Amino acid sequence: MTTAGQVIRCRAAVAWEAGKPLVIEEVEVAPPQANEVRLKILYTSLCHTDVYFWEAKGQSPLFPRIYGHEAGGIVESVGEGVTDLAPGDHVLPVFTGECKECDHCKSEESNMCSLLRINTDRGVMLNDGQSRFSINGQPIYHFVGTSTFSEYTVVHVGCVAKINPLAPLDKVCVLSCGISTGLGATLNVAKPPKGSTVAVFGLGAVGLAAAEGARIAGASRIIGVDVNPKRFEEAKNFGCTEFVNPMDYDKPVQEVIAEITDGGVDRSIECTGNINAMISAFECVHDGWGVAVLVGVPHKDAVFKTHPMNVLNERTLKGTFFGNYKPRSDLPSVVEKYMNKELELEKFITHQLPFSEINKAFEYMLKGESLRCIIRMDG
Amino acid sequence: MTTAGQVIRCRAAVAWEAGKPLVIEEVEVAPPQANEVRLKILYTSLCHTDVYFWEAKGQSPLFPRIYGHEAGGIVESVGEGVTDLAPGDHVLPVFTGECKECDHCKSEESNMCSLLRINTDRGVMLNDGQSRFSINGQPIYHFVGTSTFSEYTVVHVGCVAKINPLAPLDKVCVLSCGISTGLGATLNVAKPPKGSTVAVFGLGAVGLAAAEGARIAGASRIIGVDVNPKRFEEAKNFGCTEFVNPMDYDKPVQEVIAEITDGGVDRSIECTGNINAMISAFECVHDGWGVAVLVGVPHKDAVFKTHPMNVLNERTLKGTFFGNYKPRSDLPSVVEKYMNKELELEKFITHQLPFSEINKAFEYMLKGESLRCIIRMDG
Repeated sequence: MTTAGQVIRCRAAVAWEAGKPLVIEEVEVAPPQANEVRLKILYTSLCHTDVYFWEAKGQSPLFPRIYGHEAGGIVESVGEGVTDLAPGDHVLPVFTGECKECDHCKSEESNMCSLLRINTDRGVMLNDGQSRFSINGQPIYHFVGTSTFSEYTVVHVGCVAKINPLAPLDKVCVLSCGISTGLGATLNVAKPPKGSTVAVFGLGAVGLAAAEGARIAGASRIIGVDVNPKRFEEAKNFGCTEFVNPMDYDKPVQEVIAEITDGGVDRSIECTGNINAMISAFECVHDGWGVAVLVGVPHKDAVFKTHPMNVLNERTLKGTFFGNYKPRSDLPSVVEKYMNKELELEKFITHQLPFSEINKAFEYMLKGESLRCIIRMDG
Repeated sequence: MTTAGQVIRCRAAVAWEAGKPLVIEEVEVAPPQANEVRLKILYTSLCHTDVYFWEAKGQSPLFPRIYGHEAGGIVESVGEGVTDLAPGDHVLPVFTGECKECDHCKSEESNMCSLLRINTDRGVMLNDGQSRFSINGQPIYHFVGTSTFSEYTVVHVGCVAKINPLAPLDKVCVLSCGISTGLGATLNVAKPPKGSTVAVFGLGAVGLAAAEGARIAGASRIIGVDVNPKRFEEAKNFGCTEFVNPMDYDKPVQEVIAEITDGGVDRSIECTGNINAMISAFECVHDGWGVAVLVGVPHKDAVFKTHPMNVLNERTLKGTFFGNYKPRSDLPSVVEKYMNKELELEKFITHQLPFSEINKAFEYMLKGESLRCIIRMDG
């Protein structure tokens, strides 16, 4: 019996209010419209961005809402005009998209699609400005076009990466956001030459993925920078060879790094979003050839300040979004990196939970205990 | 009769005091020591940096001094250990050097030689910490290791580019500094793809050379930005297709540029050193792929400020020094660009003077009347 074209009733974790535990509810999921697909989510994981918008500190709150944007699933049905995907395809939904038609999608350098670029304020689908989720007729808002904390969800076809069906979705689901973000920041943007020195600011999941990228690239020294010294033991598994805690010094951490690297690192990657860390990450790269890459999302009032001579001395400052990966074009190859054992994903997965216990995943993250917690949707 | 090994008595334009007209004096030029060469200067030109340090506003003054660093000449004699150059070689002395042995020289990306990087405070030669110039026993200080306002000068071998002897020195002498700086900023650092849009901030000689680089690279639109509208007519000869005067608008010039280019230019090159222009140059490039290159030297108290989201949105900020050219390795090929008519130099040369009238060149520059004034040393 096909569910295509029908409303599907299923379980979803609904956030009714900012910061309050999610409630597992029975929701109705409408069929996909033009250029949309409906996905059966098998595994989802929790990312800081979910927590940030759930806490709704500093943004306009949009509730009730279904969060979630790191996930793996299977296409249940497709809407009108969808030719790239078919029911049964294994996919990763992504919080930002690739229309393949705009200037950004046509550029080899950008992944910031004009049509489908991340939009955290929008809680509805582009096609009709409505939500596909409801409970007794009350619309429930989408989150970044993915809303994967639901057994079924509707996503724009431009936000869905079709991947190798042999890839285990309970592992590769983490490539939907954070891990690809850090990995791509190193491999696609910082591009450390083999044997080079790399500093990674912030040793959460994104920073550790950046370190993993440096390991894969063959960096000779990978300096982890974090104010939490507990991070270092774990960071060794991701290639970090040294650790600098800015709290241990009276001078700026960029000076400390310059001293231990004979003038600065060849590459740095900033994964905290803290403005001082951003400035340090830029100023700690070597003059003449150093490249600093900003990944972490800053506070809206933050100001990046540096003496312009730090730029003139032939340093480069770059920013990246989602590791410069184009979701549909590039994510399948990242999955292949895992499949051919170039990239290790298991070490990012510190916890697993059934869907019924999803609120525990929020607790793990808020306590800083987890890197990634995989949530089994059938549990 | 050879002059090698002998003190040479010749004319030099000596700056006895800050901001006071130079005085043509008879000076004694000692023979070159180890790793030094003595050059007969045939043509020199005047650059803003000479004027800046002659005015001595804001730096520790060092007088009496012989300025001058854009020039073309012929090797008169070489010191001990010099094997790359021989008497009779045609050369361009350069204000920054290339030792070929330090990390910077070994890097493909840097030209900021650890040993011979520009040093505006040093008025003596590295070998013995002494000057090679004197008048009746009184030492006269060197300037940036070149001091080309003298019929003969002594330069470190690492600051001398050997060039095609067929190249006319009265033209290619301008490649010693400003023209190469602007040209290289575009061709080596900004690297605009064919058909791209480029903004150039500041339409002095360096900025016009940056525009010339964009023209050579095949840019489709070259937007000249200057507060002096008189610059535009001349700028057309260097490829500028449009002109924006920030004084004509109530909003920041980066917004004006974004509006006329559908979101921003592909590349921008900042050649003024004004901190606000630097910020505008960065913020006027397109998100996703835009690259801004800083060339102009800022005030020592300047602070570059921008919202970090301007970086995160996949813009790149780079700085360059001397257009990223390595003096000895790369300048000969720039001379060849002129020889094969790819690069036009004549249009930069607005004035010519005999050496005896060198102070007029300062006047032309201070009045903003000249791009480059060639000074014939035999005149």
